[in-house]
Amino acid sequence: MDKTIAKSIINNKFDDVMFGRKSVRNFDETKSIDRSELQEMIAEATTAPSACNLQSWHFVVVNTPTGKAKVHEAALKFNYPQLETAPATIFIFGDTASHEVYREVWTKARDAGKISQEKLDQIFNTFLPMYEHADQEFLKFDATIDCAMVAMQLLLIARAHGYEAVPWAGYDGGKLLTALGLDAKRYVPVMAVSIGNAAEQPIDTDRYDAAALTEFV
Amino acid sequence: MDKTIAKSIINNKFDDVMFGRKSVRNFDETKSIDRSELQEMIAEATTAPSACNLQSWHFVVVNTPTGKAKVHEAALKFNYPQLETAPATIFIFGDTASHEVYREVWTKARDAGKISQEKLDQIFNTFLPMYEHADQEFLKFDATIDCAMVAMQLLLIARAHGYEAVPWAGYDGGKLLTALGLDAKRYVPVMAVSIGNAAEQPIDTDRYDAAALTEFV
Repeated sequence: MDKTIAKSIINNKFDDVMFGRKSVRNFDETKSIDRSELQEMIAEATTAPSACNLQSWHFVVVNTPTGKAKVHEAALKFNYPQLETAPATIFIFGDTASHEVYREVWTKARDAGKISQEKLDQIFNTFLPMYEHADQEFLKFDATIDCAMVAMQLLLIARAHGYEAVPWAGYDGGKLLTALGLDAKRYVPVMAVSIGNAAEQPIDTDRYDAAALTEFV
Repeated sequence: MDKTIAKSIINNKFDDVMFGRKSVRNFDETKSIDRSELQEMIAEATTAPSACNLQSWHFVVVNTPTGKAKVHEAALKFNYPQLETAPATIFIFGDTASHEVYREVWTKARDAGKISQEKLDQIFNTFLPMYEHADQEFLKFDATIDCAMVAMQLLLIARAHGYEAVPWAGYDGGKLLTALGLDAKRYVPVMAVSIGNAAEQPIDTDRYDAAALTEFV
């Protein structure tokens, strides 16, 4: 990744970013986040790995009153605080047609002379057929994992930019897709991430002792 | 999280950890990682958020020749390099019975006088019934997201500890569960993360222009 993209990182202490992360649900409504910085954070988050680098993620950023009104009815009530107070909520959808996009992108690269036909054949003959013949459940599973990983990076990136965030999925997925005009056959609602300046002290949540959840073999 | 746990973090530059992360598939076989450090990295990774804090993850660390032999047959051939050369591969499984664990943990906390009966009722009457009445598909979906998020943190933590890593899922899930003696009805194989000292210069993979994958509403 181009290092110049990280211009807005104001907290670069890894341990503080990761271990200090807590879910914030009430944000300072007087503060906004520029569209360019939101786009920058998404670009940074997409350095996450994805299955076969298919990048099966799609982002819808709700950062206007119109946008908020659009998705309001799809959200469950207990998630109104973050949806209403955060300057931006980024909805992350799994793209079950990412392998078609992939084929298109690489074919264009061949057409433009950026890669050879041989290289193209190599790309297309390894894993693409597996996806092209996969059932919807497999495609959904893979896209869900990609999205959760990119969401985790987004939560951390938000802190590195000086914001706080909360991941949530308390919405009616079908209503959400309809409200945003997304193809319900193609896109899987995976998670929403609300980002902004904290207006509350978040609750510290416990974790189980990791040793109790780990086996060594 | 207790700050003293982060004693082994040797690279604390957030941008370097996140943007410098690339998948490494060949590791230095002469280097090992202490079991205590592996456990520490897992504990650190579990600071990840999870749906309703159910922490629906389970870890099996393969860090011995016996362990490697056990899972070898379940792995697909193109993943042998990392499985064979990495000092440790951590298999992450979604736990679809995490809500039962949750009920047990909080009931014990009430029995021990750590929380009141009222608090217990409050916990149990909010989201637990939803999980207890959920179908397997929902439980699998939620556990998969939890695991992918903790896996993302583990990939980053590995770098902060001075190692490199690769996430992979090229295995036969059924065989893997059998080889590790895990209940196939309860656990969902989500991902493996191999960790060690890099013995190769990893390939730099491209990402699509994030703006092409983002809508603002």
